[in-house]
Amino acid sequence: MTITVPGKAIALVSGGLDSAVSAAVAKSQGFILHALTVRYGQRHSIELNSAKNVCDSIGVSEHHIFNLDLRCFGGSALTDDYDVPKGSKPSSESIPVTYVPARNTIFLSLALAWADSLGARDIFIGVSSVDYSGYPDCRPEFISSFEKTANLGTRAVNDKKKFKIHTPVLSLTKAETVKLGLSLGVDFGLTWSCYDPTDDGLPCGSCESCQLRAKGFLGADVLDPLLLRL
Amino acid sequence: MTITVPGKAIALVSGGLDSAVSAAVAKSQGFILHALTVRYGQRHSIELNSAKNVCDSIGVSEHHIFNLDLRCFGGSALTDDYDVPKGSKPSSESIPVTYVPARNTIFLSLALAWADSLGARDIFIGVSSVDYSGYPDCRPEFISSFEKTANLGTRAVNDKKKFKIHTPVLSLTKAETVKLGLSLGVDFGLTWSCYDPTDDGLPCGSCESCQLRAKGFLGADVLDPLLLRL
Repeated sequence: MTITVPGKAIALVSGGLDSAVSAAVAKSQGFILHALTVRYGQRHSIELNSAKNVCDSIGVSEHHIFNLDLRCFGGSALTDDYDVPKGSKPSSESIPVTYVPARNTIFLSLALAWADSLGARDIFIGVSSVDYSGYPDCRPEFISSFEKTANLGTRAVNDKKKFKIHTPVLSLTKAETVKLGLSLGVDFGLTWSCYDPTDDGLPCGSCESCQLRAKGFLGADVLDPLLLRL
Repeated sequence: MTITVPGKAIALVSGGLDSAVSAAVAKSQGFILHALTVRYGQRHSIELNSAKNVCDSIGVSEHHIFNLDLRCFGGSALTDDYDVPKGSKPSSESIPVTYVPARNTIFLSLALAWADSLGARDIFIGVSSVDYSGYPDCRPEFISSFEKTANLGTRAVNDKKKFKIHTPVLSLTKAETVKLGLSLGVDFGLTWSCYDPTDDGLPCGSCESCQLRAKGFLGADVLDPLLLRL
């Protein structure tokens, strides 16, 4: 009988709900976690603090906040000075203005660099293509293609063990993600989803990300601990 | 008859010989160039200055130097404190210590972000898999896979025009690259190749990159104008 002991893994942790659950899944599988958060010029920094708290709570070996200013490239309501839409229904039919060009390609590339340097071959990312905003870089075909690219462009070329991009919440509804997180002890009160918090640091409640989060807790039939805490 | 007018393109310009020729090819094809250089924690900064001079000389619409500190991930003689090998013959059989983990995946991702934001679909990168250092992310199979990934993870998903990663020197010997550059008027005196310059800012002459450069000028039967200038 061969027993495989999980080694080091990189977990991309944004401070949001999906990445917290994905990191918790990695932890539950026995991986030693190296967590990566990217400060990419988000309009607010609450989520960076949430990322830190999530990492502390889950228990990671190391948490690195990487600075990378994507504002110079423009092209997104999340990094530029144009309005985050409110009240509109999240739809997967078109790419919304909150899409940040090539964000997950960049984040996965950075995770890949760290992993290749550590000799790790497992990367966890909290993308979801069910209750999501229609970002092209959250879909399974993108993830699968990135994984192939990763195995062609790194030391994995000469290595028997290949890169695997783990996406534990990819095909879960937001409610299923909430339930999975609760079963793993994720403290959702530490997570943050809102794209456009109020001046007092409260979630706006009406951006697409707030709406998806609310749908998740409603569907899971539990109260959102973040709202209870505020 | 349909005439296609080339639009904007991103050119990755490192300050080296291959990327200068690739950018010159893009320019000769009529593209409006947006040049991207990455300050990633190289041990020396001479090549950043060379990148600037190359861009000025070729004539780009915009040159952006992007800060991204890959030193925190470690794993390369180009960003860490361990020695750049000297005098050894460049070989494509193993991955040398000067390999920077996932560097081209990251650089292409950044170029992709900028391109997607500009609505450009053409990216030029000066990788070569003939006279090269054996980096896995310089091979055609990697580039082709990245191109597929790019078209799955960006606004190109909904666009008739897809991303193309142009690699004009991919299958050229270093001598052929030098000849192509000369035919396009590239001033190689402005380019820089050495991984480990002397304290006086001169090329060491013996690192793998200096050796490949020397082989190129020797094969093209011309003197290296950089050496004449020094």
